[in-house]
Amino acid sequence: MDRLKKFESIFYPKSVAVVGVSADEQKAGNRFLRVMQEFGFKGRLYAVNPDGNDMLGLKVYPSVRDIAEPVDLVFIGSPARSVPQVIEDCVAKGVPAVEIFTAGFGEVDEEGHRLEQDIVRLAKGKLRIIGPNCFGVYCPRGGLTLLPGSRYPRESGSIAVISQSGGWVTDFIWAASGQGLRFSKVISYGNACDLNEIDFLEYLASDPETKVIAAYIEGVKDGRRFFELAKSLLGKKPLIVWKGGLTETGKRAVDSHTGSLAGERAVWEAFFRQTGAVRVDGFEELLDNTAIFSHFTEGAGRRVALVGGGGGVGVAASDMCEQVGLEVPASPPEIMEQLRALLPPIGTSARNPVDVGHPLAPPSLFQKVLQTVLSWDGIDTLLVDRIFFYGLPLLMGAPDTTGTDKRVEVLINVARSTRKPVLAVLGELTSDIDMIGIEVGRREVQRRFRQAGIFALPSIHRTAKALANLCSYYEKASSSRGKDYDKS
Amino acid sequence: MDRLKKFESIFYPKSVAVVGVSADEQKAGNRFLRVMQEFGFKGRLYAVNPDGNDMLGLKVYPSVRDIAEPVDLVFIGSPARSVPQVIEDCVAKGVPAVEIFTAGFGEVDEEGHRLEQDIVRLAKGKLRIIGPNCFGVYCPRGGLTLLPGSRYPRESGSIAVISQSGGWVTDFIWAASGQGLRFSKVISYGNACDLNEIDFLEYLASDPETKVIAAYIEGVKDGRRFFELAKSLLGKKPLIVWKGGLTETGKRAVDSHTGSLAGERAVWEAFFRQTGAVRVDGFEELLDNTAIFSHFTEGAGRRVALVGGGGGVGVAASDMCEQVGLEVPASPPEIMEQLRALLPPIGTSARNPVDVGHPLAPPSLFQKVLQTVLSWDGIDTLLVDRIFFYGLPLLMGAPDTTGTDKRVEVLINVARSTRKPVLAVLGELTSDIDMIGIEVGRREVQRRFRQAGIFALPSIHRTAKALANLCSYYEKASSSRGKDYDKS
Repeated sequence: MDRLKKFESIFYPKSVAVVGVSADEQKAGNRFLRVMQEFGFKGRLYAVNPDGNDMLGLKVYPSVRDIAEPVDLVFIGSPARSVPQVIEDCVAKGVPAVEIFTAGFGEVDEEGHRLEQDIVRLAKGKLRIIGPNCFGVYCPRGGLTLLPGSRYPRESGSIAVISQSGGWVTDFIWAASGQGLRFSKVISYGNACDLNEIDFLEYLASDPETKVIAAYIEGVKDGRRFFELAKSLLGKKPLIVWKGGLTETGKRAVDSHTGSLAGERAVWEAFFRQTGAVRVDGFEELLDNTAIFSHFTEGAGRRVALVGGGGGVGVAASDMCEQVGLEVPASPPEIMEQLRALLPPIGTSARNPVDVGHPLAPPSLFQKVLQTVLSWDGIDTLLVDRIFFYGLPLLMGAPDTTGTDKRVEVLINVARSTRKPVLAVLGELTSDIDMIGIEVGRREVQRRFRQAGIFALPSIHRTAKALANLCSYYEKASSSRGKDYDKS
Repeated sequence: MDRLKKFESIFYPKSVAVVGVSADEQKAGNRFLRVMQEFGFKGRLYAVNPDGNDMLGLKVYPSVRDIAEPVDLVFIGSPARSVPQVIEDCVAKGVPAVEIFTAGFGEVDEEGHRLEQDIVRLAKGKLRIIGPNCFGVYCPRGGLTLLPGSRYPRESGSIAVISQSGGWVTDFIWAASGQGLRFSKVISYGNACDLNEIDFLEYLASDPETKVIAAYIEGVKDGRRFFELAKSLLGKKPLIVWKGGLTETGKRAVDSHTGSLAGERAVWEAFFRQTGAVRVDGFEELLDNTAIFSHFTEGAGRRVALVGGGGGVGVAASDMCEQVGLEVPASPPEIMEQLRALLPPIGTSARNPVDVGHPLAPPSLFQKVLQTVLSWDGIDTLLVDRIFFYGLPLLMGAPDTTGTDKRVEVLINVARSTRKPVLAVLGELTSDIDMIGIEVGRREVQRRFRQAGIFALPSIHRTAKALANLCSYYEKASSSRGKDYDKS
């Protein structure tokens, strides 16, 4: 109860104080204040500095203690040595939680480590700490953002992110929100001296707003508990984990970054095998998997029908699907026959991968082929590749008389008429600056597709990998039902 | 001698005849004629159709035989059944080579297979065939392009491509040329009924214009010869191979596409191990590797200095480098000391990965760090990640006062002052359509980098993989020198 109350004050604070506001505009405190104002925080904002003058239209308080009203959350950007005093002030004031942006603690040296232990001791049982060495919390419903996020979406969503890296999480919100993804709670938690991945996961597990959890983790404090939590989430909320520092070189970097113990690769591999947490390697995969898990909330089956424009694309898509463990079953005779009746006899294939000949196939043909493929019980999922050439006028210097926009509409309509998951690959045709219009067109089609329930990524490689993870997760969740997971 | 003469007429034809020109504007012959005119072919163009009227400002000849002047190359777009007659006409006329766009041969059925054998028999010893079921040849120096390539660069380059897929090769030229890559010869060769990968490789091996060869291959006609050729190229011209159809599903797709025998996976794995051909899986990797091999023509060493803006990026880059076999040695004491004297004590790392704190590090600091790192003998290659945030004004709603452009200049100047290869990761910060200016900025920086000799890709994942391949290739080439390769 008390625990939850503290989280309420973290995610939905009515008042936030910023410690470390100074005459230097570039100081973290000043930047955080500005970002919160621009983001449109609706609660009260207080600026704190022992010897500061009023600024940014705000009175500057010498200490948190001097604020008359209650304070729910304190952002600490003042130098590391000053932090113990700030913590004491917060405790005295009865502040329930702080986020410490300031770095220079356990990740640096022995002295920093002692300082970190000091603040933990001062706070113990009285106030909760996020950080130090973190960027804070972004919770659009609470009107709260983290440091560079003045322009993050105000709109809420169902994705939660926890990250030990502030850099990755800021990049992640930019990249993901640009694709239309929206967030419930995002927590950059740095060194995790007090609140750590387990506290956040426990909260997010029961947070009704959160449906998918993405995590960038360098080290965990209590491996056993983390394991149990990840296991209990299986089939309830997908947990997607990018584990940084799985190599020896990566471990060295983790030590310099958050001072975490990165752990042994073999242990982490067992963790992924045994819990159902989705393993991703790197930023792009974290993005792709978060996107696909928040898109298809009931999973997908791995028997894939591939429909493509050209023979080479079918070969590549087949190889990629099989490599990641998806199945591309051959068309059964009745489907083969129907497709053969539709397709020109030459330069096409009815076999699965189904080749409609080229990316400029007539929209009516494309539609009939898709309908036929979707009538086949033996497939679970439709994947369309190399069909949408929105850049033809620029690439070929001729108007597009082939109906690219109609093919887009065909897929949208077909997707609306089926319950099977539909995915599309929207390749980047060129990165030529003079042809940036092609990229704009690609992104517009991607947006239209997503709005219509069609999941789209820029390459078959990325699409197949994300789809395979989605299938594996829901298979694991399904086979675990009725087993020990039910007891938890 | 005769063989080379035939290739001369293929790549540098003085006159090209197009068979299959008709009243239907959308027919392949018409489209090819138009594309050649728009591309600016300087030689003579002839249109051929037994019952055609004059069109596109050209007289239409009933047969190739009716053309009075010599014909170097014939593009055949007429229906499959008509092709044997066209071949006979070409032989009678003394045409040295044809490219057959028409599909419906060995890749379709037994009848098509017989037709394919017929044309091979008719041509044998008299004329050479590219295709059938291919898109033809793009050779900018010869003024020649392949079917959709009216706007391909007129400028020549050093990259040759051979591909059994016309679709992949057209996409490849669009994508690669948009990144500034330029081509010597590109051959889409489809079913390879006569001229095949071995003929083209032999020619390209001795072509002075070609420095790097990229290949998309579904099946080879003479495995032994292909193996020997690939082996003989090691250390002379990098050969980058994307083998389509390495899985069972992929094989089925290959059969429908070019009717090739895809071969066993184990055999191909031995091929890559034993020849030095660079193995890539998929379009993106073919692109990245072609780019890096044509960029660093003397290779690179695998001891990498990583410089990044933020701790998380260092962890990720370290993991990725180690996973692909690159080395990230820890800074020796003297370098560590110099870096520590430069870097702020908190939120940075002097260890390698070197963390300058954040992507907005002061340009002068960034410059000194780079110079220090490059003075270290123990590293071969510099890789910079998460430094260039060209999108700040759009992302953060504030002017960029941090000197992003200066950091770009710093890297360019530093790269010019060293002989060590320099690479940069230029991540896509968002795919938001309203923020397309960020992507334009990213592409501009990428272009400036490439022009200054800095190799740039959008992710550490792609960069590290391509760099590792580059290192492996040149190590293999170097260790093979003085061995049996010298005898060949």
